[in-house]
Amino acid sequence: VRRIRLVLEYDGTHFAGFQRQPHARSVQETLEKALSRICGHPVQATGAGRTDAGVHALGQVVHFDTTGRIPPERLALAINAVAVNALAAPDLVVRRAEATDAAFHARFGAVRRTYYYYVCRETPSPFLARYVLHERRLAADAAARMREALRPLVGTHDFAAFRAAGSSARTTVRTVYDAGVAELPGGAGAGALLRLEVTADAFLRSMVRIIAGLALEIGAGREGPDALSRALFERMRPKQTAPPHGLFLARVEYPDGFRGGPPPGTECGWPGR
Amino acid sequence: VRRIRLVLEYDGTHFAGFQRQPHARSVQETLEKALSRICGHPVQATGAGRTDAGVHALGQVVHFDTTGRIPPERLALAINAVAVNALAAPDLVVRRAEATDAAFHARFGAVRRTYYYYVCRETPSPFLARYVLHERRLAADAAARMREALRPLVGTHDFAAFRAAGSSARTTVRTVYDAGVAELPGGAGAGALLRLEVTADAFLRSMVRIIAGLALEIGAGREGPDALSRALFERMRPKQTAPPHGLFLARVEYPDGFRGGPPPGTECGWPGR
Repeated sequence: VRRIRLVLEYDGTHFAGFQRQPHARSVQETLEKALSRICGHPVQATGAGRTDAGVHALGQVVHFDTTGRIPPERLALAINAVAVNALAAPDLVVRRAEATDAAFHARFGAVRRTYYYYVCRETPSPFLARYVLHERRLAADAAARMREALRPLVGTHDFAAFRAAGSSARTTVRTVYDAGVAELPGGAGAGALLRLEVTADAFLRSMVRIIAGLALEIGAGREGPDALSRALFERMRPKQTAPPHGLFLARVEYPDGFRGGPPPGTECGWPGR
Repeated sequence: VRRIRLVLEYDGTHFAGFQRQPHARSVQETLEKALSRICGHPVQATGAGRTDAGVHALGQVVHFDTTGRIPPERLALAINAVAVNALAAPDLVVRRAEATDAAFHARFGAVRRTYYYYVCRETPSPFLARYVLHERRLAADAAARMREALRPLVGTHDFAAFRAAGSSARTTVRTVYDAGVAELPGGAGAGALLRLEVTADAFLRSMVRIIAGLALEIGAGREGPDALSRALFERMRPKQTAPPHGLFLARVEYPDGFRGGPPPGTECGWPGR
């Protein structure tokens, strides 16, 4: 038995989330179908992050075990061919595949995860509309306001306020390493594209979307600059949850240097580039 | 009566082309529906380029006449709102709208048109798959080969060989100002994204797709480097036509400086950026 790890990109628009579930098309099920076909036996895939319905990924990491003999360097091509030709799933692409030791675990071994949330004030171009939230009410200085508001999240805190109902995490303490806003020039037509970026050891369910939802209210001037820190420290669940289509699981990092997603600073500001 | 000019972006995936036709969803019809609703009378829209089914646009230019009273500066917002909310057409976005004089003609007044054709050797990211041709056979030096092969097209020539059957143009003489290949780093996953770029006074029907089709054969080493110039000068219609989804009407230019599409050199290499 060999353990294989994969880096996965997907457009979440037509997926009911990463996790397998009855009567819905999930990333996990689609991937497992492709892997089972190629390996010649049923395959169970474990992902680093269980992204919600409609959420995209640039750097999801997955591991699975196989007794099949396909060389890992040919696996990505094989999976992509099966995904496109047999499963009609061009919205899921394996970017990298390699053998790893049995101790590697995509979910429990990950030490840093980074999410991006894309938003713009102007009507986004039709090529971006599926990946960027259009928020007409953003103030001219929204990036600065949101950057300021996000800063208090950095550190080890109880993020119980930023958890979706039904989340079953044993502890709600997480460590946020970085939380900021990038301004990407000439983004979606006339105006700038803003990218909220949050890096943490792990996230609670819907945590980034709840943070983004409140950050956007601050960016629109409808909440004061301290609304995020108050929600955090007073453990008040914000009312807003930003819609899923602006959200990307951008990067997952491991202690051995393995990484899903583009290296920081190498992108031109657009997912998939 | 006032004449208005618009700059339009669209994702051509679900359009049967620019031009109105029975029993099919066209850009022209969708736009005219939105304009008629806003202006309060039937509107006829004239476009700079009649893009084929599946072809995208970053800078299509359109003019129309109206007796309606909506200020031009509010027109883009109004059209986009109607397109999204009433016509379920988020794949069509008006980027700019302004009043112009009655002598302006989107089609006959345009002096330069630029098309882009995107292609990559690696499996494109799921965010690019609808806009980039995946051509596994491209050689490592495909960009250089294609650049060389395209050069003889520059100039005023009879492009009869590069015309789709059924084209009704009166003359097949066109002037190509520029034809080249840009290499966009880190494009679609591991490998570079290549962008064929052709600028001319005007194009024959399917001209760019026929040129791209043969250029890609040259890039794949299946045709010699002089295949394009031979097709041109011997007026031999190439067998290959590149599929429409990699093609963008990128830019349209007018003598008064008006321009549809991003200024040259300002993009980061991805349509809509």
